[in-house]
Amino acid sequence: MPELRYDPIRPRWVVIASERSLRPQDYIRKRQEPKPSNNCPFCTGNEKMTPPEVFAIADAPREPDTPGWKVRVVPNKYPALRIEGELKREGIGIFDVTTGIGAHEVIIETPDHHRHMDALSEEELQAVLIAVRERMLDLRKDERFRYILFFRNHGAEAGASLAHPHSQLIATPIIPPVVVSELKCAKQHFEQKERCIFCDLIKQELLLKDRVVAENEAYVVWEPFASSFPFETWIFPKRHLHDFTQLSDEDLRVLGRVLGETLRRLKTALDDPPYNLILHTAPTPHSRPARRHYWETIEYDYHWHIEIIPRVTKIAGFEWGAGLHINPTPPEDAAKYLREVEIS
Amino acid sequence: MPELRYDPIRPRWVVIASERSLRPQDYIRKRQEPKPSNNCPFCTGNEKMTPPEVFAIADAPREPDTPGWKVRVVPNKYPALRIEGELKREGIGIFDVTTGIGAHEVIIETPDHHRHMDALSEEELQAVLIAVRERMLDLRKDERFRYILFFRNHGAEAGASLAHPHSQLIATPIIPPVVVSELKCAKQHFEQKERCIFCDLIKQELLLKDRVVAENEAYVVWEPFASSFPFETWIFPKRHLHDFTQLSDEDLRVLGRVLGETLRRLKTALDDPPYNLILHTAPTPHSRPARRHYWETIEYDYHWHIEIIPRVTKIAGFEWGAGLHINPTPPEDAAKYLREVEIS
Repeated sequence: MPELRYDPIRPRWVVIASERSLRPQDYIRKRQEPKPSNNCPFCTGNEKMTPPEVFAIADAPREPDTPGWKVRVVPNKYPALRIEGELKREGIGIFDVTTGIGAHEVIIETPDHHRHMDALSEEELQAVLIAVRERMLDLRKDERFRYILFFRNHGAEAGASLAHPHSQLIATPIIPPVVVSELKCAKQHFEQKERCIFCDLIKQELLLKDRVVAENEAYVVWEPFASSFPFETWIFPKRHLHDFTQLSDEDLRVLGRVLGETLRRLKTALDDPPYNLILHTAPTPHSRPARRHYWETIEYDYHWHIEIIPRVTKIAGFEWGAGLHINPTPPEDAAKYLREVEIS
Repeated sequence: MPELRYDPIRPRWVVIASERSLRPQDYIRKRQEPKPSNNCPFCTGNEKMTPPEVFAIADAPREPDTPGWKVRVVPNKYPALRIEGELKREGIGIFDVTTGIGAHEVIIETPDHHRHMDALSEEELQAVLIAVRERMLDLRKDERFRYILFFRNHGAEAGASLAHPHSQLIATPIIPPVVVSELKCAKQHFEQKERCIFCDLIKQELLLKDRVVAENEAYVVWEPFASSFPFETWIFPKRHLHDFTQLSDEDLRVLGRVLGETLRRLKTALDDPPYNLILHTAPTPHSRPARRHYWETIEYDYHWHIEIIPRVTKIAGFEWGAGLHINPTPPEDAAKYLREVEIS
């Protein structure tokens, strides 16, 4: 069973995969031999190579784990956290441990091995986002889960181990540290001002305009003022809403359009960069009893959004040791490049 | 002038290099063309290729910027922060900015292009550590600096851009976020218990022994309980001391021995892995007026130490988006491998 361990001096949880421990040789081999990519388990026709599907979108009725799907969701064959077992929270001397209970699912975004998210149509992206919403709604029924994180790794340098277009969902028995820190800042701002800090940010960015990449009736895309990475890009809904799962199919169609356009801008400007995409939304309602303080005003103070991080710089000792990122491209310049780039 | 910008929702500073902005093409080119390494500016005989040296250790008297040195410290030719200018702290609407004042120096650890830190003798490592201490003592005379971070990037994957063995010092006008978080945890623990949290950690690790890699009269080397990375390794002095610059030459000789041994263990176990090494010590005394709360009990609650992070796994969307690291090797297993590895 994997474990979550809490670091007492850098206050955060870490997942320790204690059941199948990688040895030193495994890391050496990994560095030397790139993984072969023939016989892709995510390609259509190879449905039996994955664990049984938990969700799919198709144009016509079909048997599970057979071709004909447009989007398909399966459990990760090598999950970071395990669905089976009891959630236990323990103290060991000075240390804290939680059993590594969770869920880890893969969203196969298209049957086509080569069509990445930037190449998908508005409707195809909508289908992917509907799959995300539906899986989140299903996973949050499990009372053990405190958070469900949707993310996408594009390119080997961004951590993608399989080339077939896919994204992932991980359900965790804790609220992840980065989300905790956002929730804290949002709550503190609301307590002082009775306003959502994200709504304030949107207003300021739309007023100044120099970091805005694109805007439509429902969404704003901008480069954050304190971008940790060059060309870091945020997609914010203009409508205040804490919970992504409350979006309608129509909302997700518009989001699909904005997301596709944004990814095409980054692809054109940076020549198909590796990137990470992350969805930040409210914790699951089951986190409420233990995390009441975040929940008191969450409908008012939190605001879901998407963060995209192109991985074009190296993270070195200064960034790790200090937590201080050095960004060689000011977000105002990055926004100008992305605004002016020609996309189809 | 570079800027430091504060992120209002992920509470941390970021360095924005606003004077020489990298364009999208620069990142594309960087990905495609590895830097040539002939004509190394850090090799002996090429002293004129670096900015004038600020410190050196040599066996015999010599002219600055000429051969004959054992360790040489020079300003970084492409500094992340600039020494010239006035320190200004400003608010821009909802945002906070500090001018990018600081210092960025390179410690050239040996005249030999190929002798990395793991190959240096106890005395050579002592000389490097003396250079670090002396430069810290000199830089902290500048009232604008709040912190001086010593770090080392080994290997291209860990962010090293030049192959010649070197480490770096960056002085910052803020206390870096990771250090702030350590200072907070340490202070909170001290307020509750009147004990140093790091001393408590040392005691617990020495009692349990399963994460300890090595130990002598003065230092303990262990794999932290909540290691964020496989084979993450900490070196702690047994003697409680908040400030690295108070170490004597003799203390640094023993530290040099422990550091050399630890790096050889990692090199042998993981086949010369890329790594980051970071020294955490107290902020500069000039941070005291603004950061009085950390300083009230810092002699009692903080404890300097070294952290080494082998970079053998990829940081993907889950790690960035959640701040939740997945470590595939439990620290107990890593410690066993490192204990048993044969080193010269």
